[in-house]
Amino acid sequence: MTDVILRNENLKRVLSGHPWIYKTEIDHIEGEYEPGGIVDVYDYKKNFIGRGYINLKSMISIRLLTYDRDELINEEFFKKRISKAWEYRKKIMKDLNSCRVIFGEADFLPALIVDKFGDYLVIQTLSLGMERYKNLIVDILVELLKPKGIYERNDVSVREIEGLPKTKGYLYGNFNTIQQFEENGVKFWVDLENGQKTGYFLDQKENRAAIKKYVNEADVLDCFSHTGSFSVHALHYGAKSVETVDISQTALDIAKKNIELNGYLDRCHFTCDNAFDLLKKYDEKKKKFDVVILDPPAFTKSKETVKDAIRGYKEINLRAMKIINEGGFLITCSCSQHISSDTFLDIIKDAAYDTHKNIRLIEKRTQSKDHPILLASNETEYLKCVILQVF
Amino acid sequence: MTDVILRNENLKRVLSGHPWIYKTEIDHIEGEYEPGGIVDVYDYKKNFIGRGYINLKSMISIRLLTYDRDELINEEFFKKRISKAWEYRKKIMKDLNSCRVIFGEADFLPALIVDKFGDYLVIQTLSLGMERYKNLIVDILVELLKPKGIYERNDVSVREIEGLPKTKGYLYGNFNTIQQFEENGVKFWVDLENGQKTGYFLDQKENRAAIKKYVNEADVLDCFSHTGSFSVHALHYGAKSVETVDISQTALDIAKKNIELNGYLDRCHFTCDNAFDLLKKYDEKKKKFDVVILDPPAFTKSKETVKDAIRGYKEINLRAMKIINEGGFLITCSCSQHISSDTFLDIIKDAAYDTHKNIRLIEKRTQSKDHPILLASNETEYLKCVILQVF
Repeated sequence: MTDVILRNENLKRVLSGHPWIYKTEIDHIEGEYEPGGIVDVYDYKKNFIGRGYINLKSMISIRLLTYDRDELINEEFFKKRISKAWEYRKKIMKDLNSCRVIFGEADFLPALIVDKFGDYLVIQTLSLGMERYKNLIVDILVELLKPKGIYERNDVSVREIEGLPKTKGYLYGNFNTIQQFEENGVKFWVDLENGQKTGYFLDQKENRAAIKKYVNEADVLDCFSHTGSFSVHALHYGAKSVETVDISQTALDIAKKNIELNGYLDRCHFTCDNAFDLLKKYDEKKKKFDVVILDPPAFTKSKETVKDAIRGYKEINLRAMKIINEGGFLITCSCSQHISSDTFLDIIKDAAYDTHKNIRLIEKRTQSKDHPILLASNETEYLKCVILQVF
Repeated sequence: MTDVILRNENLKRVLSGHPWIYKTEIDHIEGEYEPGGIVDVYDYKKNFIGRGYINLKSMISIRLLTYDRDELINEEFFKKRISKAWEYRKKIMKDLNSCRVIFGEADFLPALIVDKFGDYLVIQTLSLGMERYKNLIVDILVELLKPKGIYERNDVSVREIEGLPKTKGYLYGNFNTIQQFEENGVKFWVDLENGQKTGYFLDQKENRAAIKKYVNEADVLDCFSHTGSFSVHALHYGAKSVETVDISQTALDIAKKNIELNGYLDRCHFTCDNAFDLLKKYDEKKKKFDVVILDPPAFTKSKETVKDAIRGYKEINLRAMKIINEGGFLITCSCSQHISSDTFLDIIKDAAYDTHKNIRLIEKRTQSKDHPILLASNETEYLKCVILQVF
């Protein structure tokens, strides 16, 4: 076995169960190892910490797979971990037609993502260490979940940090990459080959279901609608009308297909516009809605642009509050990892103050339970969904 | 009209929609007023802020009822506010057999609490200003909700700050004060006359429903069980066994009656013990449970004792984590207003660190939606319910 000895500082994060070892935390390595291979990690007093895979190409040089000295990283290990992840989803998800089956670090399988869309799975192996087990993982998934097909969506830049090529394609079966699945009883098309990330954002599944109580009989404005997921849900839950807004006509075309698939086109219309501009225009025109949904893409992907992001979030939330009928609801999200839940609430409070509106906080939500959060790893909590009532 | 002019400082809280004016914030009062009477509140430049009732006996000297200059405080005002509060519950609650009908400040009716238990209402008017409208409020509630009876539970110390007597008794109808109601389809007895506060804590209703997914087929330990509300829910949702723990035999007797009422006595047993001692004993004995529920009374009611409270929360959470089977769940609550949601999570992280357990955060919950939170008033958010998975 190869042993990695850590430096004598700041071990609390690692000892708390955060599975990453940064390159700067390594003191020295005893023995041979190959990139992506398994190593044992020790503190400077040679107390065993955990076992994981190593890749010094990445600043995150080791990702721990186990804290149990007796647990070997082999087929049995992956079978156990994957079947535990699946058992968890079976226990806590209302329906399993679509869900995230494996959420990397939070399922103790760092850098492995598996999403399920109906009978098809999409897989990402985002580190060299995990890539080496890809075929084994596919075999286990086939045995356990019996999918009709598995597609690889490793066409992401983060792989390059690990020295891995971008790639996508079939890993199991041969199938049409345009497929249908269901979420909360609503039907969707998914493009397994070219859809964003794994094809569709499953992390909002429970938040989409949560809008049910608020949208019934309501006139709804859905901004940044992307695949139309919130729009279709609002229509499914009885909205009187939905205006679906996206800056991309391609996105709107996808949204339209999803709404058509469910037979709700008659209550929906589509606006291809910048949500910032449109909200401003509607505010000036004093146009009103019962419910406004804001689910923008991340406004910041680094700490440097947080200030701009805060300005952006405040602007859209402020405008939205102003065009909501008295007693109506604002459903507002942020998926920026660098905007904490508290910061997001502060932005909302600031916006409320500027509009002179009285606001009730009805729900503070996060990502769906199939994207669990590792208590020791703030990185695994990223999605905020706040439901407010505006007076 | 009597005008209250505020001092030229720190108006942001009030202008954000926090409805309290502290005595120290008042510059001077123009005109006559009687304690409990209605006054208009202005900033130092004589801009209208809002209208509310005044009582200089209390440090919270004014509670605002409206920010609309044209809105008069009369029968129509109370009819509108109460019916809006009821409409909101009808919209967002799954069932209305039991719920909080009015949650004071968060329903823009400061110091007024109305709880519904089946056909009976319990009311609290906790300020002099609200007390003056008690009969009117009762009339409106009778007309709107058509209850069989209304009981007053004004036997609380907070009334003394307002110069009001402690009192309880019938306000409408004459009925047995021991009644049955349903919560999430589970039956409960409530003692309208002598139960704690209004008879039963409704704020955990949605959290009790949320345990469903976790307790099925599980061996459950319910600490600080009080009326047995979590225990009965666990049994209702298919727990294999429940150990119901409370330090008070009287509380256990109530819990037993509630469990008996639902026909679940055969899967439940009762332990009259201090939860701190029992958790320690079970940890030492290596006794294990699949699910542990911690719903203690507030460990602190003032800022001064927060440190002791933190120690207490850490102790019970740490012990609980240690006696949970791998993959099992900890459902842990805090109703201490002085322990913020972030502080509570920090305590949990600390406990997890000390136990060397890997913990997943599955749900971060707060009080039920019939206890909405006023964005401008942190006082209205007080309940934390965190669901964790322990590895």
